[in-house]
Amino acid sequence: MAVHTLRFSHQGRVQWGVVSKNRITPLPGEFATTADFIRSHEVGALREFASSGIASRTTLALEQVQVLSPVTRNQQFLCQGANYRQHMIESGMDPDAKSYNMIFTKATSCMAPPNTDLVKPAHVRFLDYEIELGLILKRDVLARTVVTRANLHEFVAGLVIVNDYSARDIQIPQTQFYKGKSFRTFGPIGPFLCLLAPQDMGYLGQLQLTLTVNGQVRQHDTTANLVFGPAETLTELSGVQDLLVGDLLSTGTPAGCALSVPSPLKQRVGALLPEATKWAIFNKVQEGRTQYLKAGDLVEARIRSLDGAIDLGVQRNRVVDETPG
Amino acid sequence: MAVHTLRFSHQGRVQWGVVSKNRITPLPGEFATTADFIRSHEVGALREFASSGIASRTTLALEQVQVLSPVTRNQQFLCQGANYRQHMIESGMDPDAKSYNMIFTKATSCMAPPNTDLVKPAHVRFLDYEIELGLILKRDVLARTVVTRANLHEFVAGLVIVNDYSARDIQIPQTQFYKGKSFRTFGPIGPFLCLLAPQDMGYLGQLQLTLTVNGQVRQHDTTANLVFGPAETLTELSGVQDLLVGDLLSTGTPAGCALSVPSPLKQRVGALLPEATKWAIFNKVQEGRTQYLKAGDLVEARIRSLDGAIDLGVQRNRVVDETPG
Repeated sequence: MAVHTLRFSHQGRVQWGVVSKNRITPLPGEFATTADFIRSHEVGALREFASSGIASRTTLALEQVQVLSPVTRNQQFLCQGANYRQHMIESGMDPDAKSYNMIFTKATSCMAPPNTDLVKPAHVRFLDYEIELGLILKRDVLARTVVTRANLHEFVAGLVIVNDYSARDIQIPQTQFYKGKSFRTFGPIGPFLCLLAPQDMGYLGQLQLTLTVNGQVRQHDTTANLVFGPAETLTELSGVQDLLVGDLLSTGTPAGCALSVPSPLKQRVGALLPEATKWAIFNKVQEGRTQYLKAGDLVEARIRSLDGAIDLGVQRNRVVDETPG
Repeated sequence: MAVHTLRFSHQGRVQWGVVSKNRITPLPGEFATTADFIRSHEVGALREFASSGIASRTTLALEQVQVLSPVTRNQQFLCQGANYRQHMIESGMDPDAKSYNMIFTKATSCMAPPNTDLVKPAHVRFLDYEIELGLILKRDVLARTVVTRANLHEFVAGLVIVNDYSARDIQIPQTQFYKGKSFRTFGPIGPFLCLLAPQDMGYLGQLQLTLTVNGQVRQHDTTANLVFGPAETLTELSGVQDLLVGDLLSTGTPAGCALSVPSPLKQRVGALLPEATKWAIFNKVQEGRTQYLKAGDLVEARIRSLDGAIDLGVQRNRVVDETPG
C-alpha cells in the first residue's frame, strides 16, 4: 500500500516525514538529496514506522511546516511532450500514429516548492499552465534495459504533481522548448511524494488530474489517456542516457491549456508565410486567449485516484509579476 | 596569460594538472567536480606553480595518463544552436535578423573523455559531428545579471573543445533536439581546459576551429563568426535560470556538417506534405550524404588561436558500432 511522504522545513531544519490525515510524522535522519531519501526508505518499513505508537507521539500539523519540493536540484528534470490523446488531437496530431516519444528538459533551477508564487517574467506575454504526473525513479539505469508492466515497480519509486509552466511566446517561436519552460519558479513539484508498493503500480493508469485557475476547471483528464506509458518511455530512455535514482520524469499534460494551436491545415498555410508574418499571426491568435495567466491568478493542481488511496495533495501557485531589479 | 589544465587518471587516482609542451605538472589536492577545481584555482597562481622548480621535478608525459573529461557530470551541459553565420545561411536563416538565441541541453551522461570511442547506436542511420567551443563558467549566477565584454572575465573561467554528436534521424524529425543529441558518448569534452586571464578574453572572438574526418577537413571556421556571443548569451540565460561555477555552455557549430538542410523554399513546400511523406524525402536526401559517420571513421577536432597562445588540444574519436547486449 502506498505511503505519502513530504519534504519540509521546520524550525530551520530540512526533514522528511510521512503524511496521513494532514499530520506529518517526521522521519529520523537527514537526506541531502531525493536520491539519498529514496535509497534509504522502503515502503513497507515506512508504513510500519508511521503507524507505530512511538511515532504518533511526535506528529506535526501540515500548517506548522514549510513544504519543500520533494525533488532536489541535483536530480534530472526530464519531460515528455504531447503525451495525452486529446492534447495530441487538438494539436493536430494522431495519437494512434505514435510516431515518436517527445523528450525535453527543464532547468533544475526552476524546480520550486509546491506552493511557490509563480513569477511571470516582465517580457513574457503568454504564460501557460500544464498539470503533469511526475515519476520519481527508484534506481540507477546505466545501460539499455527492458522495463515492462511486470518489473515497473523496480524502476518507479513514487509519484508527484508537476506543473510545467511555459512561456508560449518563447517556447513556440524559438522551437526548442528548454528556454521558455525553464524560468525560475516554472517547475513547482509536490506537495507529496507518494511512494508505491509493487501492488500499487496499477494506479499509474487510473489517476485523475485536475487543474483550476481561480476555481474554474481548465484541465481534467485521467492517466488512462497517456500515449507513451512509463514502461515504454523508460525502456527507450535507458537506451539513450543514464537515469539515476531520484530523477524526475514528467509525463506530459492533458488538453485544456491556454495555448491555441492552429489546425494542421493552418499550420501548412502558415509555413508558406515569411517567418515574421507567421509569428505575428500566432501572437494575434494568442492575444485573443483570455486563459493566459496574469498577476493575481491562483492555479491549483490535484492528482488522485478515485478511491483516494493515492492523493498527491494540492499545489497552489499565485501568479506574481517579476519585480524589476 | 592563459594556463592549460587537464583532468586525468594516473595509477588509479583522478587528478588535475597543468600542461605545457606535452608534459603534465600534477596539482596537489583532490577535486570531485569541475566546480571544486575552478573555485580552488586562480590563473596567475597556477602559472607560478607550474613554472616553479619544485613542480618541474614531478612531471608526467601525456602518454602516461588516461585523459578524462575536464567537465564532471554534476555540471549543466547547455548548448546554443545555429550560432555561426555560414551555418545559419546554409540552414536557410538570416544571421543578421538574429531573432532568437536557440538554447537546448544534452544529457550529462553523454559527457565523455576527449578520446572516447564514439558509439553509434544500432538504430541510428545519420550520425553527424559538430565541433564547438565550450565555455566553462567561473561563478554562480543566481539572478538576472548584465554580462559585458568588460566584465566577461568574471563569468568565464576557461575554454574546452566539445563535439556535439547528433543522430540527425532522431533529432530533426522529433523536433526537440535533446534525445538525438544525448546518446552515451555523444559529448566528448577536452582534452584541455584552458583557463583564461582577464587579458586573454579577446581570444574568444579569434579562435580557429577545425574538424577532420579520416584526415579530410569538414569544418573550419573562426569564432569571429559567432552570431550570439558569450556576453549576450550569458546575460539572457541569467534572466532565465541559475548558472553554476563549472557549468558548460557549448556555443554552436560552424558550417560543414553531414546534415543537408533543405532550402527555405523546399522547407515551405515540404510543410504542405503529409508528415510521413516529408520525412521519407528527408531520409532520402540524407541517404545521399556520404559524410555521415560510420564505424571505423576517425574524427579529429582542434581549436586554437593563430598565435598558439590558446591551444585546446586534439580530440580524437573512433566511431564504433554499438555492441548488441
